[in-house]
Amino acid sequence: MKTSEINLQSKIREIPDFPKKGVSFKDITPLLEDADYFKEAVNLLAEKYQNKKIRKIVAIDARGFLLASALAYKLKVGLAIVRKKGKLPYKTVRKKYTLEYAANVLEMHTDAILPGQKVLLADDVLATGGTMKATIDLVKKLGGRITDIVFMVELKDLKGRQKLKGYQVKSLISF
Amino acid sequence: MKTSEINLQSKIREIPDFPKKGVSFKDITPLLEDADYFKEAVNLLAEKYQNKKIRKIVAIDARGFLLASALAYKLKVGLAIVRKKGKLPYKTVRKKYTLEYAANVLEMHTDAILPGQKVLLADDVLATGGTMKATIDLVKKLGGRITDIVFMVELKDLKGRQKLKGYQVKSLISF
Repeated sequence: MKTSEINLQSKIREIPDFPKKGVSFKDITPLLEDADYFKEAVNLLAEKYQNKKIRKIVAIDARGFLLASALAYKLKVGLAIVRKKGKLPYKTVRKKYTLEYAANVLEMHTDAILPGQKVLLADDVLATGGTMKATIDLVKKLGGRITDIVFMVELKDLKGRQKLKGYQVKSLISF
Repeated sequence: MKTSEINLQSKIREIPDFPKKGVSFKDITPLLEDADYFKEAVNLLAEKYQNKKIRKIVAIDARGFLLASALAYKLKVGLAIVRKKGKLPYKTVRKKYTLEYAANVLEMHTDAILPGQKVLLADDVLATGGTMKATIDLVKKLGGRITDIVFMVELKDLKGRQKLKGYQVKSLISF
């Protein structure tokens, strides 16, 4: 398939009333399942970031791993992972944050990023931005340098970008 | 770094008494964090499977995503994801299974694999094999053809291979 024929948005499936009534969930699995579309999504991002001297991609548990891993491979950089509380076995830094329903805690290993390393933050969906904001705080605790943040999908109505001011935010697909 | 200098096992960190006393947890994050080692791990697998006409890689929530995504990108195939109960928004097939402490349920979208598609199953660690056995059952429900299963790390003492008889099982690193 030619790149010009690929419309990434066409592979996002909208699921009404998930996870609760009134929410239209953006399901990225049809995009992941299609080899041409998945490759194109990763390549578009790799082209954008290949000359930015990124040293690590920060990958957020769990769907964020799916974009970040392929992108790290393509850019020939390492992965630093962010997980929910209690999943990481080594010494961690922690950040509490609040989503719509409850407080959550995210963690990173203390040696996941070296001080001064330039990192790219990646996740699947930008909604309210709460998870990414907490991730920024974790990366800062470790001394990482953040300039860019990338998402596969952005839900514009939720205005998550407002929480990410000061960074260059790119999303492949917008709703 | 030359490929010949890369000893993947040297990048697995053993964490004593995690997640409980007496267990030595094998932490793959130092390998993921090192660009050369991560690339080498993915390339070794890509070489092995590139001529096997794989059409999809089955990726298991959550750490399995980290290996499967890069490998799918490199092999130019799609990803089919397996998640814990309640995470997937579309119609699913389900499989209950029992780990040491409790019963769990894994799910896949009903259209994640097309009947007859040849798939490669990937996860980070082979321990008792319970999660992978449940994944095999899910893939079979969808009509996928399985010949090969791959892990980043295998814990030989736990004899997980016994649950995976009939398939070609490869692990990059053994303990």
